[in-house]
Amino acid sequence: MIITLTTDFGLSDAFVGAMKGVILGINPHAQIVDISHEIAPQDIEHAAFVVKAAAPYFPKGTVHTVVVDPGVGTERLILAVRTEECLFLAPNNGVLKYIFEGHPEAEVFNVTHSEYFRERVSRTFHGRDIFAPVAARLSRGLPPEKLGEPFAEFERGSVSRPVRLPGRITGEIIAFDRYGNGITNIPVDWIEDPDAVRVLAGGREFEGMSRSYLDAAAGEPLALAGSADALEISVNRGNAKAALSLKLGDAVTVILH
Amino acid sequence: MIITLTTDFGLSDAFVGAMKGVILGINPHAQIVDISHEIAPQDIEHAAFVVKAAAPYFPKGTVHTVVVDPGVGTERLILAVRTEECLFLAPNNGVLKYIFEGHPEAEVFNVTHSEYFRERVSRTFHGRDIFAPVAARLSRGLPPEKLGEPFAEFERGSVSRPVRLPGRITGEIIAFDRYGNGITNIPVDWIEDPDAVRVLAGGREFEGMSRSYLDAAAGEPLALAGSADALEISVNRGNAKAALSLKLGDAVTVILH
Amino acid sequence: MIITLTTDFGLSDAFVGAMKGVILGINPHAQIVDISHEIAPQDIEHAAFVVKAAAPYFPKGTVHTVVVDPGVGTERLILAVRTEECLFLAPNNGVLKYIFEGHPEAEVFNVTHSEYFRERVSRTFHGRDIFAPVAARLSRGLPPEKLGEPFAEFERGSVSRPVRLPGRITGEIIAFDRYGNGITNIPVDWIEDPDAVRVLAGGREFEGMSRSYLDAAAGEPLALAGSADALEISVNRGNAKAALSLKLGDAVTVILH
Repeated sequence: MIITLTTDFGLSDAFVGAMKGVILGINPHAQIVDISHEIAPQDIEHAAFVVKAAAPYFPKGTVHTVVVDPGVGTERLILAVRTEECLFLAPNNGVLKYIFEGHPEAEVFNVTHSEYFRERVSRTFHGRDIFAPVAARLSRGLPPEKLGEPFAEFERGSVSRPVRLPGRITGEIIAFDRYGNGITNIPVDWIEDPDAVRVLAGGREFEGMSRSYLDAAAGEPLALAGSADALEISVNRGNAKAALSLKLGDAVTVILH
Repeated sequence: MIITLTTDFGLSDAFVGAMKGVILGINPHAQIVDISHEIAPQDIEHAAFVVKAAAPYFPKGTVHTVVVDPGVGTERLILAVRTEECLFLAPNNGVLKYIFEGHPEAEVFNVTHSEYFRERVSRTFHGRDIFAPVAARLSRGLPPEKLGEPFAEFERGSVSRPVRLPGRITGEIIAFDRYGNGITNIPVDWIEDPDAVRVLAGGREFEGMSRSYLDAAAGEPLALAGSADALEISVNRGNAKAALSLKLGDAVTVILH
Repeated sequence: MIITLTTDFGLSDAFVGAMKGVILGINPHAQIVDISHEIAPQDIEHAAFVVKAAAPYFPKGTVHTVVVDPGVGTERLILAVRTEECLFLAPNNGVLKYIFEGHPEAEVFNVTHSEYFRERVSRTFHGRDIFAPVAARLSRGLPPEKLGEPFAEFERGSVSRPVRLPGRITGEIIAFDRYGNGITNIPVDWIEDPDAVRVLAGGREFEGMSRSYLDAAAGEPLALAGSADALEISVNRGNAKAALSLKLGDAVTVILH
């Protein structure tokens, strides 16, 4: 069974290795897949986006483990979440906000039953002492009900939704990728004719959406359908975030002709 | 069966995770090995060198998947390549140039049969939507013939060859590694007596080749046989690229005494 | 069987991929786990700490392979080490110093039997040509006795031990993690009452140990029990190394009230 890991632990320390050691000690047959360990320290917002962008492509039953956890060692809770497709294990800090938004059927449990943790739990490394052993046990078939009580008061986080008005769509930039592409929350299937729109973003206007990055000259910005089926602001062979001084939350407007 | 991945996707986004999810959904038994995801964005030249340097060490039948693909979403083609040893899947942009050079027996196919792709193919993320599912199917034994027609007009890329003249060999720097070592295209087995040569590179002269990095004083440059069995220009405990202002394509000459 | 890798090879070159190819060619069933490839070039000290921090969490029988090896190509030796729990393979440069310290029962062998190496051994990449094939064979059950003679004169490295005096403990900072936390060699179980201590480090005094990073205001330093069960100097949502100008070897004192 597959266990994915998304953390802000980086790859220069022993953190990720220790988690994998614990997992394989409990489930030697676990297939561990790294989604990212290069989330910027404590960047819950980016981690939430990365989980949203990767999780749908994994097989049914995958256990997605997310450890971006500034509150480690405090009274913050840990959640186990079951959707129709798979399981999530994460701190109760909003990092699963897009999962909750996309899966109204999700069942949420408050992970408290310490018999499934490592015997000795440190205050600073729950990734190794709680998340890893619990993920390993879930991957062996432990039902999340065993981990603690159903829980309704979890942190849903704040998801900014795009708005469809007559003649226009307004949304915002919700993530950047390593290339500096600005990913919006505007679904491209809201846009019937990609040639018959004007996109306003970062103080620029784009007539029509592009088909590929190369549709603009090198260094020129463009708007196109990104990999998450959302409108994306890019610069061909450049970095839109830097070139257009984009920030998370910047408004993006699509004028429908 | 092993599938290797070489991309410029970095490790801070969901790209690599999504590819692995798709692969494991199609072939749960695939052994996925990351060669590198830290190729600089769109650096086809370095990706070509990395594939050349890693591929020969993998077992027969490995499926090497290379996604450094500035032309994604345009009409650029995707190639499936079968050598006597293994399979390659890559955009038709020269990133396999060293494979074509080293394997005249290679059979090349133009990957067009979309029944082996994800059902919905985005314009910006063929890694997930085409390369991953096709690699997974190749790893399950799909013959590359099934993916499309044999194809002869592929991009062979430009491979600069060293020249052997009486008394001297001339070549150039074709890659740098993370330590700043400058790797040349001069095979060390062209050099009969490593003590009886003078090497000219980066405005310096080296009398004889060194045996190890420590043969020079700390901070001093040297020429030695690198891991790819090619002449390499290095600085002991330093960075030859920076210290000698080396660039890709810089001439390197070996004077045979 | 599990093989872990800890190297300073980085992830932008072919080095790690080539090692994995060689391993899987010899043992297709090896489970390869990356501990870190982002050890700073030739940073034996940090590698030693990372191995110490990760190895105890792996199942019995794991083969831990450490290639941080500035002396590659010289006459430096390679060691195979068997503890009660697992096997280690590393250059004889002190990178296993914490393992030797924690495992007086360790048996050490001088790896010289080249029939277990790749047929052709380069002078600059023993990771691929010696460490990888030997690790693969150990993971298939080859006893380390087969690799060479028992060896007593190995490099034990220098481990600085904390000192317990009446009313105080003195130690030092032995590692930093990516967050800039300064990890000391002072075991937290030497501190009976974490509220009844004063900690001196980096020119600061801390009254009592904190329970979690959030016990201090954002940007404020604190002392707490770190993940390695050692006293750690941190800054909430900040970087203690930078903020307090900490260096490896800096003294840390705990005054017991």
